[in-house]
Amino acid sequence: MSRPKNDTFLRALLREPVDFTPVWLMRQAGRYLPEYCETRKRAGNFLNLCKSPSLACEVTLQPLARYKLDAAILFSDILTIPDAMGLGLSFENGEGPRFERPLRSEWEIRDLTAPDPWDHLRYVMDAVSEIRRALDNSVPLIGFSGSPFTLACYMVEGAGSSDFRTVKTMLYDRPDLLHRILEINARAVTQYLNAQIESGVQAVMVFDTWGGALSDRAYREFSLAYLQQVVEGLHRSKDGERIPAIVFTKGGGQWLEDIAAIGYDAVGLDWTTDLSAARKRVGDKVALQGNMDPISLFASPEAVATEARKVIDAYGRGTGHVFNLGHGINQFTPPENVAVLVDTVHEYSRNRP
Amino acid sequence: MSRPKNDTFLRALLREPVDFTPVWLMRQAGRYLPEYCETRKRAGNFLNLCKSPSLACEVTLQPLARYKLDAAILFSDILTIPDAMGLGLSFENGEGPRFERPLRSEWEIRDLTAPDPWDHLRYVMDAVSEIRRALDNSVPLIGFSGSPFTLACYMVEGAGSSDFRTVKTMLYDRPDLLHRILEINARAVTQYLNAQIESGVQAVMVFDTWGGALSDRAYREFSLAYLQQVVEGLHRSKDGERIPAIVFTKGGGQWLEDIAAIGYDAVGLDWTTDLSAARKRVGDKVALQGNMDPISLFASPEAVATEARKVIDAYGRGTGHVFNLGHGINQFTPPENVAVLVDTVHEYSRNRP
Repeated sequence: MSRPKNDTFLRALLREPVDFTPVWLMRQAGRYLPEYCETRKRAGNFLNLCKSPSLACEVTLQPLARYKLDAAILFSDILTIPDAMGLGLSFENGEGPRFERPLRSEWEIRDLTAPDPWDHLRYVMDAVSEIRRALDNSVPLIGFSGSPFTLACYMVEGAGSSDFRTVKTMLYDRPDLLHRILEINARAVTQYLNAQIESGVQAVMVFDTWGGALSDRAYREFSLAYLQQVVEGLHRSKDGERIPAIVFTKGGGQWLEDIAAIGYDAVGLDWTTDLSAARKRVGDKVALQGNMDPISLFASPEAVATEARKVIDAYGRGTGHVFNLGHGINQFTPPENVAVLVDTVHEYSRNRP
Repeated sequence: MSRPKNDTFLRALLREPVDFTPVWLMRQAGRYLPEYCETRKRAGNFLNLCKSPSLACEVTLQPLARYKLDAAILFSDILTIPDAMGLGLSFENGEGPRFERPLRSEWEIRDLTAPDPWDHLRYVMDAVSEIRRALDNSVPLIGFSGSPFTLACYMVEGAGSSDFRTVKTMLYDRPDLLHRILEINARAVTQYLNAQIESGVQAVMVFDTWGGALSDRAYREFSLAYLQQVVEGLHRSKDGERIPAIVFTKGGGQWLEDIAAIGYDAVGLDWTTDLSAARKRVGDKVALQGNMDPISLFASPEAVATEARKVIDAYGRGTGHVFNLGHGINQFTPPENVAVLVDTVHEYSRNRP
């Protein structure tokens, strides 16, 4: 197995020399694309889409047909693991995810086990194989998982939350129970990502969407420690190729040095952190991924190009930068602005003054 | 006019010696108190409550009757300024604020002017006078305003927003228009706070609730610069007493050094920033206010006391710390835990090992 024809994304993550700044977008296969909405309609609902390897493959490839993106990312949901644990995931119309059986009582938590990814999550592995075949080694495929803490938020709250009252009350009152959930989640995430690597993903990313809702002390104890457990258990190479790992705590800019120290190859940053300052803070310890404000894609094409150039200039010369948004692309984004963004990143980084 | 009998809050803000750590809570007069809900019901709606000096005085004093708080804060809303500008503020039942006439077109923005606080906002000044009389110089009264950028968010969006799409599109496409709004807002906020000082508030606080939604570059240009304009225009003393000014950008922990440099006496911090690290970063330039996770108040009384002690220990010895939550108190907070919090802060800080 050799590297893909366009391996710029992998090279940047490993801080090897690159000819231009590679770019992909979080949630690049998503509702801003009319073709995605059509496939989703055909699937009946979002969960069917995730669970059908051929439909997941179809939507994974859609943004690559439109834009010169430098990586594909597996189409899936971060909640596949708790679903496989038996918590009963559903997506109500127009609303977010909901679990039928959230974790509240001590015995439910004691009974929790990490699901075998080759059994209950087989459909994800099948999707990975199918996407790899379809990509035909053109660009790398990224696998991913939610972080142990982010999964725990949904598992305990039973749904999204604006204040995380239930899971935080557990954190302050019964830290032992939350640690038990996080131990299981860390094991589950590690096994899940290793199965994705075994199935063919060429890089992995851990999304810590909600770690930024914690206090500094609680972040270290309940999120960062488990992000480290995950990366320490990952199979970091396959067929002689290094599998780079990226970690992204939204709202984690303040903790950058600490996040950069736990063993991932790259750290994702949201748009609130200046890339130039961030690069000084991490030195050559890790690559950085990010970090344009996703809402800037609502501006005129000229303004989109200007913002993209500012992000590239902020990082500066040399390798180690993967261009991305600072958060998932907004569902109302005009698709034509994404083309402007991708082309600007390539052209400007290739021909910098 | 002399300092209040309990002037610990003012002393801590000015980094004068204190016997204990003073404490007040953002939104301390609010829906978690049954007596507040009764007064609000009596007022008919939230806006009537803000606009009646005697009812505003009544609810301002309610938390002080229950808890040994070291400051009172004027009961009002951050949107009184845009309301006085004629944008037509209303609060729909169970929902947030809404403006009938949000600022969208260029001519509306060109026509915008800062309201005379002694005219359209007279009811706020009357409330300040009435509260001062009722407090009888027991504890200091804090006046406040929303920040120029936070006001602009509501004025342009017309309501709260999860992504600030409208105001950010203006920011990226027509920065000149947003700057025009922010210029007017900065003038309006300055005049409004000066009128509050003239009416008797003994400290002022500027709430930059939404500055943290901006990119690093945009924060400096569209929020921080106008926070500085405001503080530079404030009357910082009254009757020979210094009027301390506090600034709070929620989510602004990364920018702490810059916020501490623009001229406020104190910087508020949300719970994501460690106070010990923050204190090292600002040295003795400013006092710090904060920063317990408001959701920790849902835990057991023992856990509440433990968290409070951790915040006090994180700041360490010496003056310059005003204890607060890292955000407004949640409406579902058990009121008895607030008593535990306030008493713990006083006892623990007075008798530290």
